[in-house]
Amino acid sequence: MPEVVLIGAGNVGTHLGRRLHDCGIAVRQVFSRRISKAERLARQIEAQAIDQWHELYTEAALYILAVSDDAIAEVGRNIQAQLPAEAFVVHTSGATPSTALQGFRRYGVFYLLQTFSREKAVDFSAIPVCVSANQPKDELILEKLGQKISDRVFIINDHERAVLHIAAVFANNFVNHCFQISHQILEREQLPFELLQPLIQETARKITAQTPADMQTGPAVRGDVATIRRHLDYLEATNSPYRELYRQLSKSIRPSLKIED
Amino acid sequence: MPEVVLIGAGNVGTHLGRRLHDCGIAVRQVFSRRISKAERLARQIEAQAIDQWHELYTEAALYILAVSDDAIAEVGRNIQAQLPAEAFVVHTSGATPSTALQGFRRYGVFYLLQTFSREKAVDFSAIPVCVSANQPKDELILEKLGQKISDRVFIINDHERAVLHIAAVFANNFVNHCFQISHQILEREQLPFELLQPLIQETARKITAQTPADMQTGPAVRGDVATIRRHLDYLEATNSPYRELYRQLSKSIRPSLKIED
Repeated sequence: MPEVVLIGAGNVGTHLGRRLHDCGIAVRQVFSRRISKAERLARQIEAQAIDQWHELYTEAALYILAVSDDAIAEVGRNIQAQLPAEAFVVHTSGATPSTALQGFRRYGVFYLLQTFSREKAVDFSAIPVCVSANQPKDELILEKLGQKISDRVFIINDHERAVLHIAAVFANNFVNHCFQISHQILEREQLPFELLQPLIQETARKITAQTPADMQTGPAVRGDVATIRRHLDYLEATNSPYRELYRQLSKSIRPSLKIED
Repeated sequence: MPEVVLIGAGNVGTHLGRRLHDCGIAVRQVFSRRISKAERLARQIEAQAIDQWHELYTEAALYILAVSDDAIAEVGRNIQAQLPAEAFVVHTSGATPSTALQGFRRYGVFYLLQTFSREKAVDFSAIPVCVSANQPKDELILEKLGQKISDRVFIINDHERAVLHIAAVFANNFVNHCFQISHQILEREQLPFELLQPLIQETARKITAQTPADMQTGPAVRGDVATIRRHLDYLEATNSPYRELYRQLSKSIRPSLKIED
């Protein structure tokens, strides 16, 4: 596998860089605007750390932009000024169309469908890698690269990835918000959040085997208006900002519920 | 440990009955209105199956009502007619006050904070058992019984349990609804829900170590209005019933978001 240049040394950059290195793919350079961040990662993966665009190695087989969504276009412009016309450039964002890089002749996306924490190692082989490119032969390059680091590689076009991202907002961001509300409710009564951990883990475990629709339980799906009203009363009495959300989510689970004030 | 009578052979009754038996606590009888259900469980735990109130053994140390919330009061009345005044009766509901059984001189709650599926075995020793009783010495009996079947026993009063239940609605029922919406969004585009499984599992794993507030990611918390608008447009274009909920949840994550139509 030819050499790769990694732009960005945040969570995604760090995990991806390490995994590429571990799987025998040479990462030539790590770029970060903060050289200390570039150096920390570069040291681990035998790469060169850089923080200036003009230092960019121009012969890499692939340039991977592991930067925040709103930086993709600008970083793209910065590296385009340095690179030959045939340079192949991808970003790693689930939310951004590949066309954010259409200034390049060869562009694409190399999206890891996982959430990363700085410290925690993850089982990379199970992470879905979603690739696409504007040219079929480049899509093949990304597919092969993906297969080096994961057992689950999918060719996913811009539209599909956008939809996947919306679904992930519900399954991850909104789920986490529900956890946070739950945490806050317990905290107010000095009850430990740990009490809910087995329930949370079991809920996540269950949906590997059952569809979420089959798993729905609770007062809303049962149409248990008395319990719902008690819960709403409590949220109101404690001035919770989440009363209306409780109502909306309950109505969403069972639209025929009559719980208007 | 003296004998127990179990009223109800549904998911909770079945898992609890088996666990009690496995931990050396004698279950004398299993009651179910459907004798076949009572028999199926009773066979497994060397108990007698009954479906008539007048068959109730009157000398048990504890009567455990593992029945649905709305059946607790009625079942309580039915067994009260059969039992001596000093009978000790508890229910297993997170949503119902112990006072639903206050017709008894000795009453309480023995609540397993977990979701059960018929087939799947669970790690019972990690399940929080939340107990309370109207008399301190009975609370001690429940605490000891809890400790036989789990490492995590808590004395939780009616108010605390009600709050715990609200928190569980967010952390379990509403989370599952978010999974279901996610599932539905992917299904429409014929994308497999399995793509999101590693993300979901990692999200659940993470909150064993971090607080949900620290873990919040996504367009809402970043204030990424452009992405949110794209997502809302997609939900509108596909006539999704979840557009308004997406908006509400995003606003709930970051109240200062300007995403009104």
